[in-house]
Amino acid sequence: MNIVEIIRKKRDANPLNEEELHYLISNYTNKKIPDYQFSAFLMAAYLNGMNEEETSILTREMLHSGIVVDLSAIKGPKIDKHSTGGVGDKTSLIIAPVCAAAGIYVPMISGRGLGHTGGTLDKLESIPGFRTDLNLSMYKSVLKKCGTVLIGQTKEIAPADKLIYALRDVTATVESIPLITGSIMSKKLAEGIDGLVLDVKTGSGAFMKDYNDSLELAESLIKTAKSFNKKVIAYITDMSQPLGNYIGNWLEIFETIKILKGEIKGDLYTLSLTLSGAMLYLGGKAKDSDEGYKLAEQMITSGKAYDKFVEVVKLQKGNTDFIKYPENYPNAAYRKKIIAGKEGYLNKTDTYEIGMAALELGAGRKTKEDKIDMSAGIIFYPSIGDNIKKDSIIAEIFTNKKSSLLSAENKILKAVEITSGKTRKPKLIKTILK
Amino acid sequence: MNIVEIIRKKRDANPLNEEELHYLISNYTNKKIPDYQFSAFLMAAYLNGMNEEETSILTREMLHSGIVVDLSAIKGPKIDKHSTGGVGDKTSLIIAPVCAAAGIYVPMISGRGLGHTGGTLDKLESIPGFRTDLNLSMYKSVLKKCGTVLIGQTKEIAPADKLIYALRDVTATVESIPLITGSIMSKKLAEGIDGLVLDVKTGSGAFMKDYNDSLELAESLIKTAKSFNKKVIAYITDMSQPLGNYIGNWLEIFETIKILKGEIKGDLYTLSLTLSGAMLYLGGKAKDSDEGYKLAEQMITSGKAYDKFVEVVKLQKGNTDFIKYPENYPNAAYRKKIIAGKEGYLNKTDTYEIGMAALELGAGRKTKEDKIDMSAGIIFYPSIGDNIKKDSIIAEIFTNKKSSLLSAENKILKAVEITSGKTRKPKLIKTILK
Repeated sequence: MNIVEIIRKKRDANPLNEEELHYLISNYTNKKIPDYQFSAFLMAAYLNGMNEEETSILTREMLHSGIVVDLSAIKGPKIDKHSTGGVGDKTSLIIAPVCAAAGIYVPMISGRGLGHTGGTLDKLESIPGFRTDLNLSMYKSVLKKCGTVLIGQTKEIAPADKLIYALRDVTATVESIPLITGSIMSKKLAEGIDGLVLDVKTGSGAFMKDYNDSLELAESLIKTAKSFNKKVIAYITDMSQPLGNYIGNWLEIFETIKILKGEIKGDLYTLSLTLSGAMLYLGGKAKDSDEGYKLAEQMITSGKAYDKFVEVVKLQKGNTDFIKYPENYPNAAYRKKIIAGKEGYLNKTDTYEIGMAALELGAGRKTKEDKIDMSAGIIFYPSIGDNIKKDSIIAEIFTNKKSSLLSAENKILKAVEITSGKTRKPKLIKTILK
Repeated sequence: MNIVEIIRKKRDANPLNEEELHYLISNYTNKKIPDYQFSAFLMAAYLNGMNEEETSILTREMLHSGIVVDLSAIKGPKIDKHSTGGVGDKTSLIIAPVCAAAGIYVPMISGRGLGHTGGTLDKLESIPGFRTDLNLSMYKSVLKKCGTVLIGQTKEIAPADKLIYALRDVTATVESIPLITGSIMSKKLAEGIDGLVLDVKTGSGAFMKDYNDSLELAESLIKTAKSFNKKVIAYITDMSQPLGNYIGNWLEIFETIKILKGEIKGDLYTLSLTLSGAMLYLGGKAKDSDEGYKLAEQMITSGKAYDKFVEVVKLQKGNTDFIKYPENYPNAAYRKKIIAGKEGYLNKTDTYEIGMAALELGAGRKTKEDKIDMSAGIIFYPSIGDNIKKDSIIAEIFTNKKSSLLSAENKILKAVEITSGKTRKPKLIKTILK
C-alpha cells in the first residue's frame, strides 16, 4: 500500500476501501504518514466527498485508534446527546441531570469552546473546583453512582480525531460532512453508549448556517450511527438567535440552575426537554418522545433534576455553595446595559456576532492558548419578532476588561436588525429524523 | 493576510489575486508556510484549477523567488526550447548546436531523468568530464563564447519551483496544468530568453498521454509565455513510440553524433530540425519556420552543427575524444538481441514500458538517489506500421546488471503489439500553436 496512490484515488473521486482507510488512519495516528500528505488527502476528501460506507469505515478507524469504554458493568441504558453547538447552547448541562434523574445513564464527553461558540467543559469549570479531567475509572465510578458524568476527551479516546482535527483547523478542511461525521461519531461511540440524540443547529449562530448543509450532516450522522447498530434520533434546531438569554461560562451555569429550578421557561427549556424526552424514549423509559418530554418535565417540577445537578457537581469536586447560592458568585468588575436606540421589531439577529461580542468580553478563546474570563458574557434579552422600544435594554454585558465594553456594545448593536414590519418568530425545531 | 483564508478561497474555487499568490509563494519559499498547509493549497488548486491570470501570476511569483539571469551583455536573440519529455527524446542535444551554429543563442537549463523518461543532464554527463553544474557566471561565459550552454537548475533559479515540485511529487498533485505551467515557465523565463519553442508530447510515452490534455497544457504555456511578452510557438508531437532508435544516456549521445554528422534521418532528425527551424524564425534568422528548417539542415550538411557540439562539449570540460571516436566508449558488460518471435505489423508500442525496460537495465532512476549506468539502454528498431518477420531483431539491450536482461526483454516483448493488419504510421507533428 502506498500513501500517494491513496491520495490519488481520492483526488480522482474514487471511494477508498477498508484496507486503504485503515492504512491511512492508523499510519497517520502513528506518525508514519506526515502531515503534508494527510492534508492533501483531507482536501481531496473535502472536495470529492466520501460515500456512506467510507464515512462509516473512517469513523470506525478513528474510533479504534483509541479505546471504547466498557460500560457493561453498569446495568441500564446509556444514552448521550450531541449538539453541533451554537451561542448560548447549554442544553447538555440541563439534559444530563434531567435524564439521570429519570433513570437512564448519560455518559458525556464534551469539548471546549473556540471562536464564537462556548464549550461545555469551560462552562462547568466556571464552578470553582469542578474537575472535568477525570480518568476513565473515575468516569465510570461517577456515572455508576449518580447516572451522569461530564468530562473532557481523554488521551485514550479517539486519538486520531485529536490529530486530524488540529490539521483540519489549519488547512481549511473543517466544514466537510464525512470528516465532521467521523470526528463526532468516533468520540461518541467511544463513550460506550447504546443510543444517541443529535441536535444539529442551523442559522446565523450555527457552525453550519445553511439548512440543507445541516440536513445533510444530520443524515450522515444518523446513517453512521445506524451502521454501528446504535439507536439514534436527530433534531435540526434553530440557531438564528442565541438559545436562552445567557451567554458566557458562569452566566450559562446560572441560567441552567434557573431552568432546573423551573424558574424560567422559553426556547432553552423547550429544547432541553425535547432532547431529554427523545433520550428517555431511546433508553426505554417512555413509549415515545412526547411521553419522554412529560417525564423529563416531571424531573424539573419534582426538583429531582436540580438535586441530580447538585449531586454530580459535588461528585466532580465542584463547590455546590455556588449552585445553591449563585448570587454569591464573584461579579465581573464592569457591566453595562445596552439600549436599543431605535423602535420597531427585532427582525434578525446575527448570532455569530453576538458570540464574537462575548468572546471580545473575555468569555471565549481566539486561540487554543487563551485564558477564559469565567464571569464575562452577555445577557441578551429580545427574541426575533419582539417589539422593541427606543429605550429598551436589549442586553447587559459583563467583563473584567474595561477596554472591551465599547467594541462589544458596537458588535451587539450591529448584530440586531430592528425594522418597522413585524417578523415571524423562527420555528425552534425544524425537522426530526430517525 | 491569512494562509487558511487563502486555502479556503481556492478550496471554494475562487481565483486568487496577486497579493494572495505573492503571500503564498514567497512565504512558502521562506519556510514561513508549513508543507501541510501548502499541500492543502496544491490539492485545492489541482481540483479547482487556476485561470489564465492566476497561472501567469503564479509563474511570476515562482520566477521571482529567484533571479532572472541578465543576458543583456550578450547581443543577439536568445531562444530556448522546452520539451515535456518522453522516451528517446534527445532533441535538445541536437537543437542547441544546430541553432548556435546558425547564429542564435541557446541558453539551456535542463533537468534530470526520473521514472520512465531520461534527462538531458544525465545524457550529457555520460560524456566523461562533462560539467553540467556551471555557476551563472560560467553559464554566461560559455554561452557568449559558443552560442549555447547546457546546465542544470542552479540554486538561484526559481527556488520556489524546486520546493513545490518536491511536495507535488509526494502529494499526488503533479498532473495539474497550472502547476505544470508555473514550474516549466518559471525556470525557462529565468534563463533570460527572448523566445521559446515548446514541444508538448502526447501518446503512450508522454507525461500527458491524452491529446486533449497535451493541447490544454500547450495552450496554457503559450498564454503564460505571451503574458511575459515572450515570442512563442508550441508543437504537439507524437510520443506513441520512442523518438529515434536509441534509449539510454550514452546511447543517446551516440545517436546525437550520428544525426549531427548527417548519417541518419528519420523522425528524430525531422523533429529536431522542425523545432530548430521555429527557433531560428523566432530569433529572426529566417522569415518563417520552413525557411528556418532549411537553414537548420544546412548546419548539419555543412558540418557546422557537429563542430559546434564538439566546441560546447570542450568548453564544458567533456572529453571530446569520445565525440570524435564514439566507438571507443566503454561497452556495457552484457548485451542481448531481442527477437520478435511473431510475424505481422507493429500496431502499437507501449512506450512507457520501453522506458521502464531501460530503467530496469540501469539507464534511469527509480528514486532521486539512484545511480545511473551510463552505458545501459536499448536500441529499439521498429516503427509503428513496419512489417516484422518472425526472426526480426526488434531491439538490442545493454546493461552491466546481468539479472536485468530477462525482465527487460519481457517488458519489451510485452510492449510491442504485432498484428496481421497493416497499421497507419502515426503523424509526428500533430498540431502547431502560436
